[in-house]
Amino acid sequence: MKIIDGGVTAATGFEAGSTAAGIKYEGREDMAIVFSQVPCKVAGTFTTNVVKAAPVLWDKNIVDTAPYVRAVIVNSGIANACTGEEGMRICAATAQAVCDLTGEDVSTVLVGSTGVIGRQIEEDKIVAGVKALMAVKEDTIEAGTKAAKAIMTTDTHKKEIALTFEVGGKTITLGGMCKGSGMIHPNMCTMLGYITTDLNISKALLQEALSEVVKDTFNMISVDGDTSTNDTLLLLANGMADNEEITEKNADYTTFKEVLYIVCEYLAKEMAGDGEGATALFTCRVVGAKNTRDAKVLAKAVICSSLTKAAIFGHDANWGRILCALGYSGAQFDPAKVEMHFESAAGSILIFKDGVAADYSEEEATKILSEKEVTVICNMHEGDAAATAWGCDLSYDYVKINADYRS
Amino acid sequence: MKIIDGGVTAATGFEAGSTAAGIKYEGREDMAIVFSQVPCKVAGTFTTNVVKAAPVLWDKNIVDTAPYVRAVIVNSGIANACTGEEGMRICAATAQAVCDLTGEDVSTVLVGSTGVIGRQIEEDKIVAGVKALMAVKEDTIEAGTKAAKAIMTTDTHKKEIALTFEVGGKTITLGGMCKGSGMIHPNMCTMLGYITTDLNISKALLQEALSEVVKDTFNMISVDGDTSTNDTLLLLANGMADNEEITEKNADYTTFKEVLYIVCEYLAKEMAGDGEGATALFTCRVVGAKNTRDAKVLAKAVICSSLTKAAIFGHDANWGRILCALGYSGAQFDPAKVEMHFESAAGSILIFKDGVAADYSEEEATKILSEKEVTVICNMHEGDAAATAWGCDLSYDYVKINADYRS
Repeated sequence: MKIIDGGVTAATGFEAGSTAAGIKYEGREDMAIVFSQVPCKVAGTFTTNVVKAAPVLWDKNIVDTAPYVRAVIVNSGIANACTGEEGMRICAATAQAVCDLTGEDVSTVLVGSTGVIGRQIEEDKIVAGVKALMAVKEDTIEAGTKAAKAIMTTDTHKKEIALTFEVGGKTITLGGMCKGSGMIHPNMCTMLGYITTDLNISKALLQEALSEVVKDTFNMISVDGDTSTNDTLLLLANGMADNEEITEKNADYTTFKEVLYIVCEYLAKEMAGDGEGATALFTCRVVGAKNTRDAKVLAKAVICSSLTKAAIFGHDANWGRILCALGYSGAQFDPAKVEMHFESAAGSILIFKDGVAADYSEEEATKILSEKEVTVICNMHEGDAAATAWGCDLSYDYVKINADYRS
Repeated sequence: MKIIDGGVTAATGFEAGSTAAGIKYEGREDMAIVFSQVPCKVAGTFTTNVVKAAPVLWDKNIVDTAPYVRAVIVNSGIANACTGEEGMRICAATAQAVCDLTGEDVSTVLVGSTGVIGRQIEEDKIVAGVKALMAVKEDTIEAGTKAAKAIMTTDTHKKEIALTFEVGGKTITLGGMCKGSGMIHPNMCTMLGYITTDLNISKALLQEALSEVVKDTFNMISVDGDTSTNDTLLLLANGMADNEEITEKNADYTTFKEVLYIVCEYLAKEMAGDGEGATALFTCRVVGAKNTRDAKVLAKAVICSSLTKAAIFGHDANWGRILCALGYSGAQFDPAKVEMHFESAAGSILIFKDGVAADYSEEEATKILSEKEVTVICNMHEGDAAATAWGCDLSYDYVKINADYRS
């Protein structure tokens, strides 16, 4: 497999477009389309929040029942969440605007929204936006990149990746984009993520691969512990690479899942590291746990701890807060067995062992914690299971961004 | 019942003292004693964190097995957590220093520590501190107040309260103090809380009353979602009010529990409102929930949401974040039925109803949210259960305090 340029338009037959529809933001593009030149299969995972945004309800229904799809329309600025019947009507009107041009059923169009909760989207604006998107969409890398930028809210940079790999002598491409910076604590998937591939695979296996990979990638990141009403991850497969359809869990399926894992892990880490106000990507790697469930629970407790996140912002080796977070995670373990290291591009240092602090240099620890990517490795010495979770530090800017996000 | 001046020394036969032992802080008192002139009964609740500080292990054993106790020694600055065998040795040495003067067994002395995790307390300093405390302790209100100040860490003010009530023609006094500002998310009780009473009551009922009241008070507050390694709440009863011993759940027991609730709720709210960097006490009152468990889970999710807390700091009526937090709390409900009001000394305003935003004035909402105590009332319209949780806003100062707490 090989990493290549691009994102959602990297795979054969996928187009993208973006436009400034004035949904809420001024002076920037705020709508994007991902379009397949031929009917394609779709898999999806969505927020577990009881309060589901209208686009989540709309998309869930399509993923569950529609025979094929053609397009995804995304807007930033307004989340179309807590918007009642009117919100659902906007989803239908958005889809209809695409279908006025394709002549297909509204069930072929998925929608996604991100931004402020509770405000209604104006129908004329979003319909005009759809028309503009259908006119400008193209299959270039640049079009994909512009789409990745149009769906950003408080993100500081666009997030996209593409890879190629071989299946039965054919070159397959898998590419994706996502956005997410605040209200990130996916319980099924992330804020908004869109992945496209020209692979030919059965719909059942497409969904199974996505659901499994999401558990170890998007579901293992957190910026602020708030699980959004809008979390949506869609995987579109149009089969244009022309390989023989994958219908069982053979070696090709395994290869596909590995590549999908790389794409999802990359996008998830990009979101965690670009958390609102973040100055560092903070990774917790738990090894030697009793079982995988414990390993995940432990790793996630650490990257979610506000006190630990604030210490990382301060480059302070305040390991007591990490041990404390492991302790309240819900997993059982013997604190005296825990071994803890900090690690970054600046080096690695043993911090805690045999129930007490190791004899380490605070100066060296601070140096290690001053990098843009820092990792704490916790060896529980209780078994063989491992897990990784990704988060970010907690800075003044997180508070600033969120104290007055709506204005 | 009547609120009176004072705290832990308000009840007959209880003394307190404080001293500057130089455990970690310079130029301030950092040790306190609560002392009963006669043997007294003790009840306690402790952190559920797997990682328990040495004083928690020490106290738990005493609460479970000791026939009576005489004193509590508390230090601030160092938490004596993650300190291994040496930490337990310090607890024993502290207790022994009291017993050198009382001639009693070390099982009569409880200890408590709060501050930085992982550092060892120097034995000569804490032993000298105990000697000083035993020399200065007295039964005045001032001595109690000074003790409440000595146990503070990042708290901005001391927290104490006392009440009197009647049992069998005798006047009973119940008073308490607590500290806690960061790492506050009690799962059994709070950071450090000490309550004294001259009531005569069986040990079993003393513990039962405390355990039940804690569930609705200390366990319903959160500053930052981090459950400490040191959470300890002790209730000492020395019987000196001379009432006939309460040995069953009669009217006197009910009265006692009501007064205990008032004391615990007051202290818990004081801690929430004095959360690190907090500018407001933020209360969530859930009514109309299916059952009490749901009501508690819903209320706690709201006051724990970082996004909601940042919005409260910004006086921003960002109700979507509150609905979002209700949605991921784990409780099931119909979002369309939720009715939400904001309330404070400046008034009350309907924000959300019938699945959409109410037609409210943003200006008026901001005015209501600009008070020092703000409440959101969520009527789920699913049943009759209610619960209240207390938290605070998330400010720049929370980050500032915690990015470099150790230095």
